[in-house]
Amino acid sequence: MDNFIYSIPTIAYFGKGQINILGETIKAHGGSKILLAYGGGSIKKNGIYDAILKQLQKADISYVELSGIQPNPRVESVDEGIRIYQENNCDFILAVGGGSTLDACKAIAAGVKYDGPVTDLFVNESGLSNIAAAAPLATILTMAGTGSEMDMGAVITVGKDHKKKVILHPLVNPRFSILDPEYTFSVPEYHSMAGVADILCHLMEQYFTPDANAKVQDRMNEGVMKVVLEDAPKILANPEDYDARANIMWASSMALAGFQFMLGKPMFPFPLHGMGHELSSMYDMTHGVTLALVTPSWMRHTMQKAPQYLPIFARFARNVFDICEKDNAAASEKGVRQLEAFYNAIKMPANLRDAGVKEEDLETIAEKAVERGNLGILTSIGKEEVLQIMKEAF
Amino acid sequence: MDNFIYSIPTIAYFGKGQINILGETIKAHGGSKILLAYGGGSIKKNGIYDAILKQLQKADISYVELSGIQPNPRVESVDEGIRIYQENNCDFILAVGGGSTLDACKAIAAGVKYDGPVTDLFVNESGLSNIAAAAPLATILTMAGTGSEMDMGAVITVGKDHKKKVILHPLVNPRFSILDPEYTFSVPEYHSMAGVADILCHLMEQYFTPDANAKVQDRMNEGVMKVVLEDAPKILANPEDYDARANIMWASSMALAGFQFMLGKPMFPFPLHGMGHELSSMYDMTHGVTLALVTPSWMRHTMQKAPQYLPIFARFARNVFDICEKDNAAASEKGVRQLEAFYNAIKMPANLRDAGVKEEDLETIAEKAVERGNLGILTSIGKEEVLQIMKEAF
Repeated sequence: MDNFIYSIPTIAYFGKGQINILGETIKAHGGSKILLAYGGGSIKKNGIYDAILKQLQKADISYVELSGIQPNPRVESVDEGIRIYQENNCDFILAVGGGSTLDACKAIAAGVKYDGPVTDLFVNESGLSNIAAAAPLATILTMAGTGSEMDMGAVITVGKDHKKKVILHPLVNPRFSILDPEYTFSVPEYHSMAGVADILCHLMEQYFTPDANAKVQDRMNEGVMKVVLEDAPKILANPEDYDARANIMWASSMALAGFQFMLGKPMFPFPLHGMGHELSSMYDMTHGVTLALVTPSWMRHTMQKAPQYLPIFARFARNVFDICEKDNAAASEKGVRQLEAFYNAIKMPANLRDAGVKEEDLETIAEKAVERGNLGILTSIGKEEVLQIMKEAF
Repeated sequence: MDNFIYSIPTIAYFGKGQINILGETIKAHGGSKILLAYGGGSIKKNGIYDAILKQLQKADISYVELSGIQPNPRVESVDEGIRIYQENNCDFILAVGGGSTLDACKAIAAGVKYDGPVTDLFVNESGLSNIAAAAPLATILTMAGTGSEMDMGAVITVGKDHKKKVILHPLVNPRFSILDPEYTFSVPEYHSMAGVADILCHLMEQYFTPDANAKVQDRMNEGVMKVVLEDAPKILANPEDYDARANIMWASSMALAGFQFMLGKPMFPFPLHGMGHELSSMYDMTHGVTLALVTPSWMRHTMQKAPQYLPIFARFARNVFDICEKDNAAASEKGVRQLEAFYNAIKMPANLRDAGVKEEDLETIAEKAVERGNLGILTSIGKEEVLQIMKEAF
């Protein structure tokens, strides 16, 4: 096992009605004038917005708003948030929504304490952002999947070509997150399942690394994967199944909390996210869906190019899908097929073509995916390999 | 799933040579004059003590010492620590050792900020200690098992009858813990395996509760249990197997970090610890060993008295021991037998008699075990039931 530092500074308030701690808890964390940020306004329809205002009023906390944060949040939203925060002398940020709102707010939190363009704060060669201070942030999660509610990462879209850039620093970890599974009851099926695909991918990105004998991390990871596979279909069957929503929500948080399942293992670079982000950039496609689209062909590609890692794919098949098959190659392939069947069951598109990807774009996508460097961790994945994987997934 | 709060404030520095962050990290946490506390002095033989002094000197941190903290630490050691800390105007506590030293230091941390006897701070009816402030504490773990390095609990022995009392409060969570698996290479076999039994029991106490559909917690728990079962024998075979020591050490920390595997489930009262503590009190027996001694008969007792929970025992057998058996009662019994075989393999005494317990003491032990109330969570365990379990384990 490699050396590591484990630090999960975010406190999670999990369960029904946890909104009731909001006002006093913001106050305890030093908030008196907050930037209240959210997305398209669904929180005004489902009562969450009103509940928040009631809490703020009760605790004598004033607020200004940033609304309309879009999926795949853009740096322009971040800049607007920074301006509003600073003009109003805010001292705390409350992000209400899914991954997009949370990520935008993490960038705002870092940006308001930095005297220059927020784009300076994207991850540099060190693997981390150069952040010296950040405003305190809390989140209220309304969609499970991102993991942003418990981690130190944010993905921001910049430029005309919708490039995805990453902010990564412990200072942007939320101080606390309110996780009420009931808030996800009204998330439409498509987005609920895209969230499920996102969770599963976070777990797999941390799982498929060269073996470091970090067994506690791997066994815990497999356990969470099993729950995701078991409970996602229950949400399809009944969107108001509290326990299923709760298990998926907690799986989302655990998957990225402190990147705990990859501690002691070779780090990053999350190749599936590297490819998926380019699909989102080009087609504004839902993040989780892009990950489901490339995963099986990435697995087969890696199994073929780096057969020395077949034992890891076989272990995945055996421990997560309970596949009884002694031969590693056969077990691995059965694992991929089971995963494909799962994606099919949760109604992910069958391939890139069905998802609206154009064959003539694949070359450009492949080129952009490796702009920041090789994507591989088990194998080298340059432009040519991304293209192969994309064609396989087409 | 029940509502819960997840909070793991301790930062873990895990791996070889992490001692090198000690000085600067104490300083970053505000320490300038520390109480350095340890047990019998083995740290002077294995080089840890010298490494600590070098770190303190380098960071210009002065120190006073409390040494000789005994296994099953007594309140007298705590009182001495409080006196030394206060007389020397310390501002930080560094605990170096296993569970006993760590627990004593947690009590000292709370005691130095309290204007009265530390015995006032034992857990009250609320289930928590009444603690308003505590000195900052860091730990260097030299033995895996306790989990004290990542949790908010401490067990202190008081009085002539060696009563075990509990301190439980988030304020006594260590600020940081240094976990270097190499520091456990020299732990004797008996104590290494007692630590293993302790870890396994922490996991089981959180596992065997009425089902709350908290699947993420349960699956992660099973994953850690599997690692403990797999890697403990490797330590027996080779005490310097780094990865095995690392996995067992991380299993120890994960098992009690934020009591994360029981979040969202009915809470406490850790019946196995309730019984084990009385054996330690009466015979000064190693904590982990007492737990191994009572667990199988507690399981069989519960399976018989509360057959409605057989599915949980059967799930344990299937998911942790990979037992293929459809009938719940048969699967459960096979699970207990496998657990007994494991205890046997790690050289735990076969029964209470072999461990030196006297039959005529059982009645007294049973009486004391329920002094604070019923021990059951799956069934009611009063004096009569403790006696039955003890007789079964004799």
